[in-house]
Amino acid sequence: MAEMMKAAVLQRARVLTMEQRPRPEPGPGEVLVRVRSVGVCGSDVHYYTHGRIGPFVVESPLVLGHEMAGTIAALGPGVTTRTVGQRVAVEPGVPDRVCEFCRSGRYNLCPNVRFMATPPVDGAFTEFVVMPQDFVFPLPDHVSLEEGAMIEPLSVGVYAVHRSGLRAGQDVAVLGAGPIGLVTLQAARAAGAGAITVVDLDAHRLEVAASMGATATVDASRDDPQSRILELTGGRGVDLVFEAAGSPRTAAMAVHLARRGGRVAVIGLPPDDNCPFPLVAAMAKEVDIVTVFRYANVYPAAIALVAEGRVNVKDLITHRFTLEEAERALQLSDRREDGVVKALVEV
Amino acid sequence: MAEMMKAAVLQRARVLTMEQRPRPEPGPGEVLVRVRSVGVCGSDVHYYTHGRIGPFVVESPLVLGHEMAGTIAALGPGVTTRTVGQRVAVEPGVPDRVCEFCRSGRYNLCPNVRFMATPPVDGAFTEFVVMPQDFVFPLPDHVSLEEGAMIEPLSVGVYAVHRSGLRAGQDVAVLGAGPIGLVTLQAARAAGAGAITVVDLDAHRLEVAASMGATATVDASRDDPQSRILELTGGRGVDLVFEAAGSPRTAAMAVHLARRGGRVAVIGLPPDDNCPFPLVAAMAKEVDIVTVFRYANVYPAAIALVAEGRVNVKDLITHRFTLEEAERALQLSDRREDGVVKALVEV
Amino acid sequence: MAEMMKAAVLQRARVLTMEQRPRPEPGPGEVLVRVRSVGVCGSDVHYYTHGRIGPFVVESPLVLGHEMAGTIAALGPGVTTRTVGQRVAVEPGVPDRVCEFCRSGRYNLCPNVRFMATPPVDGAFTEFVVMPQDFVFPLPDHVSLEEGAMIEPLSVGVYAVHRSGLRAGQDVAVLGAGPIGLVTLQAARAAGAGAITVVDLDAHRLEVAASMGATATVDASRDDPQSRILELTGGRGVDLVFEAAGSPRTAAMAVHLARRGGRVAVIGLPPDDNCPFPLVAAMAKEVDIVTVFRYANVYPAAIALVAEGRVNVKDLITHRFTLEEAERALQLSDRREDGVVKALVEV
Amino acid sequence: MAEMMKAAVLQRARVLTMEQRPRPEPGPGEVLVRVRSVGVCGSDVHYYTHGRIGPFVVESPLVLGHEMAGTIAALGPGVTTRTVGQRVAVEPGVPDRVCEFCRSGRYNLCPNVRFMATPPVDGAFTEFVVMPQDFVFPLPDHVSLEEGAMIEPLSVGVYAVHRSGLRAGQDVAVLGAGPIGLVTLQAARAAGAGAITVVDLDAHRLEVAASMGATATVDASRDDPQSRILELTGGRGVDLVFEAAGSPRTAAMAVHLARRGGRVAVIGLPPDDNCPFPLVAAMAKEVDIVTVFRYANVYPAAIALVAEGRVNVKDLITHRFTLEEAERALQLSDRREDGVVKALVEV
Repeated sequence: MAEMMKAAVLQRARVLTMEQRPRPEPGPGEVLVRVRSVGVCGSDVHYYTHGRIGPFVVESPLVLGHEMAGTIAALGPGVTTRTVGQRVAVEPGVPDRVCEFCRSGRYNLCPNVRFMATPPVDGAFTEFVVMPQDFVFPLPDHVSLEEGAMIEPLSVGVYAVHRSGLRAGQDVAVLGAGPIGLVTLQAARAAGAGAITVVDLDAHRLEVAASMGATATVDASRDDPQSRILELTGGRGVDLVFEAAGSPRTAAMAVHLARRGGRVAVIGLPPDDNCPFPLVAAMAKEVDIVTVFRYANVYPAAIALVAEGRVNVKDLITHRFTLEEAERALQLSDRREDGVVKALVEV
Repeated sequence: MAEMMKAAVLQRARVLTMEQRPRPEPGPGEVLVRVRSVGVCGSDVHYYTHGRIGPFVVESPLVLGHEMAGTIAALGPGVTTRTVGQRVAVEPGVPDRVCEFCRSGRYNLCPNVRFMATPPVDGAFTEFVVMPQDFVFPLPDHVSLEEGAMIEPLSVGVYAVHRSGLRAGQDVAVLGAGPIGLVTLQAARAAGAGAITVVDLDAHRLEVAASMGATATVDASRDDPQSRILELTGGRGVDLVFEAAGSPRTAAMAVHLARRGGRVAVIGLPPDDNCPFPLVAAMAKEVDIVTVFRYANVYPAAIALVAEGRVNVKDLITHRFTLEEAERALQLSDRREDGVVKALVEV
Repeated sequence: MAEMMKAAVLQRARVLTMEQRPRPEPGPGEVLVRVRSVGVCGSDVHYYTHGRIGPFVVESPLVLGHEMAGTIAALGPGVTTRTVGQRVAVEPGVPDRVCEFCRSGRYNLCPNVRFMATPPVDGAFTEFVVMPQDFVFPLPDHVSLEEGAMIEPLSVGVYAVHRSGLRAGQDVAVLGAGPIGLVTLQAARAAGAGAITVVDLDAHRLEVAASMGATATVDASRDDPQSRILELTGGRGVDLVFEAAGSPRTAAMAVHLARRGGRVAVIGLPPDDNCPFPLVAAMAKEVDIVTVFRYANVYPAAIALVAEGRVNVKDLITHRFTLEEAERALQLSDRREDGVVKALVEV
Repeated sequence: MAEMMKAAVLQRARVLTMEQRPRPEPGPGEVLVRVRSVGVCGSDVHYYTHGRIGPFVVESPLVLGHEMAGTIAALGPGVTTRTVGQRVAVEPGVPDRVCEFCRSGRYNLCPNVRFMATPPVDGAFTEFVVMPQDFVFPLPDHVSLEEGAMIEPLSVGVYAVHRSGLRAGQDVAVLGAGPIGLVTLQAARAAGAGAITVVDLDAHRLEVAASMGATATVDASRDDPQSRILELTGGRGVDLVFEAAGSPRTAAMAVHLARRGGRVAVIGLPPDDNCPFPLVAAMAKEVDIVTVFRYANVYPAAIALVAEGRVNVKDLITHRFTLEEAERALQLSDRREDGVVKALVEV
């Protein structure tokens, strides 16, 4: 009879219960990971509060959580590159490895990807998960498991910077100082960005941004970002704008902040499609729009950035909860109370 | 006393008169070009009918026309690379050569560019123009001056294909079968595109597109382009979409026609900014948006494509007028009467 | 008891014998392919004549042949994307799908790749082979199995053109008019190359090159390629040089044929390492050297080029042999007798 | 009558004399710069000791020096973007602005470039030089003129990093810890390189490299660089190798240090062409070779890196001389005595 494990299961919107579930077994090439730290992502919160994200609907009970680190508890047959006891960060989306996107290195676009905590694939608010060996990445000794859980959001920032084509010395604006904005800021700085201006409506988050390397911050509740950025750049605009706020207003603003021939990387998902967008303004400056969907091929780089001390993910973590308290973690993150940036569930 | 020449001058919206103007003298490094063939562009038509395009207002009399070929009539001091009598296509936008955009090869973004027939710079509906020697490009003997005038619109297509990153064998959709759509179609074909589907509302223009290499055409007045393209690509979508229709509806459609990881190149200018745009759909597929503003560094390639017979610009030319008939050429183009694709003014 | 099949087996250098071997069974996700057409590659010839290629030594009996097409004879468990009876071209190198190179789309660099007819992996001079379903590519009805076998060498040319960054209209030189040079020439033409000059020592092969789209040919036994190319390009040199001859002399020549800022793509493997190379000349012109190792992600594009009639691989095939005559095919190819370009083994 | 100025003039190999020369006048768009700091480059030393570098021969008296900063002393007609008194770094190569290379942004390849201290163009070991306004770059207040002179060699490193395509987190090796190696190391670090290993034969220079951010150093007089790098990278090799030593041995070594699919950027000019080069080894790993000729479009980025304190050029400067002592500066640099890294001439 299978051993059992605990899991925090979303039954339907706003109903999360603890359950006993059979512990999974690693198949060929897979490892069993004992879950230790799991970050609460905006998508977890959205599933918890709404029971869906666009076309993805929670139709049967779902385990949330996909920002995860743990230790390898067992190896499936044929696993040669990992060992029991290794501390690992887990890349949560496993593609099919055979489609044209996987074969050409863009596995984040795999139509058959199984991504943790996206219905109907269970996530990490539980004690054990099974993953292919090449989707768990060993952490250096001095990188903590909490930092390991942060590799997932950091990967979004690192990947966005890769896609943006940022070159050392270029000036950057980051719209939004939530967790994704803050890791993008740091990834841009690590890639040699020159001046980095961060825009948000929340004074506290802007302070965090400044402590993480923003060279200027703009409180959009008081100042006009476009005027400020033009002022800071001598009227030129910035080379690259990272849109990490996910509002239609910031998506449009991004175009206006970019210099002639600049680029906008859109990371944040606006709530509705078909928002008004200044396409003519983009064309008149030949500003290109790069979109970012999750990430691919960046976990090793993200881990190295943390290991070398060039990115600080520790200070994103503001709150910690037990597995049994997972619902409180979701609620706190939903309400953005208590200065929360990132809440962790420690299993 | 300066010699005089004739010019067709736009006084204000819908008022074009013939004038005598002093013939210009070529300065150092410049050549005097006797104008022979000038294409009527949509922007000429728009200045004629509205007296402005967005922020560019015809505040004093303006000579229209910027798609031009002619023969070199005289050389300014120090000109060594051109000779009198050469038949040349003229690149109509002369940048300042010293700004960061010029220095880095993106001279189409030069803030100080002087572009023919954009207020207050006069254009080519006249007998002579003066240009720097490196902005007039000799035509091979078997390329006619009429074809030479078509190098300008063709350059837009060639440049759009360059910017799009098209690789041989990729499938393409072109939205709009006006002159720009038709040259883009041909430039894409010349760059090795696989299937090329052209979408328009005008059955006649779709026939022209088919004769110029479109492998499929969609009459959007009868069929749904998205359904048709998905059908033609086995549900995958195309690798690249060129938006050359300039309507908000086609700009949005472009995103939906692209495959996962595909790209949209926006060439056509929608009439208003802030049109609704499916940014979320683009992000979910990681579709990038490349914008195209005029062109840079493509005249030699465009001339070579015509010279080698790989692009047919001759059949774009449907009507010919004298300089004195320039107004009729503008009116005909405005009303899209008589199956006009491209009208030429022959000086 | 397993069914048996015939195989032509290289025992050691210059000893090829027919054997009976057990017919393989397709495993999960694999298909069984009945071999129909197999091209003789230079590497097959080299293994046959020398028993090795550099570090790759034929230490136990080896089936040669990796340019292959056939029909699907059976499906392994879980195969959903292919059907019995399909006519397919086979991509002969199967990577591990988990290393950093596979994950990032450069699976040709996978250190664990199993490549047909590279010791100790058996090849296709036999009746049946087993392959993963995504490494067999269905052929359109009007593409023959012989053409299907040619997809492999064509892929080298298509991939070389991809890596070279060729843009439509650029001038190209191809050094070597053997099978790889001829497919590279055609891939370059299909990607919109302008003038294409082919250099070889063999007048017959240069004639074939001319018939396949070379705009000029240089017989290096009589003319100096560098003088000729400079003459043809008005002293400028070509934008791209494809080195497909595999001699130290042509590798060096390639640099001298390229224009300032041009590029050299090295496809042919010189016999020895550490050949003299004009690195200073390359630097003075900022000419980059792109290397090409096999190919990745190009089978669909290569098949499309043949299907659309834009590449002619049929005329590369000069000789046909039965499986029992495989040794004669190798010997003929070795001696380059009888105007051989490509010999096929028809099973 | 023209005012006079002092100049240190190379008459022929090893003969440098002080002369009085007429002070130049700035023409339209030009500025007169009072020279303040000039670095001694390896090319200056080579002209001094040999009277030539390859095809460039000192046939008439030549002023050396091209790494230069100073203050604007006068403006020519029409200069609007610079003012008298500005402290500026001078970009020493002025291209023709009209050739295909200038127009496409690769002005370092301009065949008509006039580059200071390359015969027959005089350099900066003098009191005044005249330059186009856009080739003198204002320095922020807290960047010294000595640092301003170092912008020139730093630009080589910044440009090499741009061309190399370095992405944040990638591992790097730098061969050679002379001035160019040291600025390349720092430019790579500023662009987010992960581990950076520097190889040289000089223990002192390796110490400087360590102080400037090398994470490991290899003294090639004692250790085998290839073994050490493979050890440091777990057998993988580095993502990028910058060859800045300029010897045939290091150019070959560079290929062997690169990982599969890695890249080698060649900056150092080996003394002779046609040195043995491991092209086969490069091909087997699909390692590309990027060459670097001077630089283009990087002065602003280089200045920003110094201004932001992310690159330390101050500590490259080990010796200072007056204009009258220029010959001693050249001799000291030639003999590499006294721990010299970079000698400056202060005018």
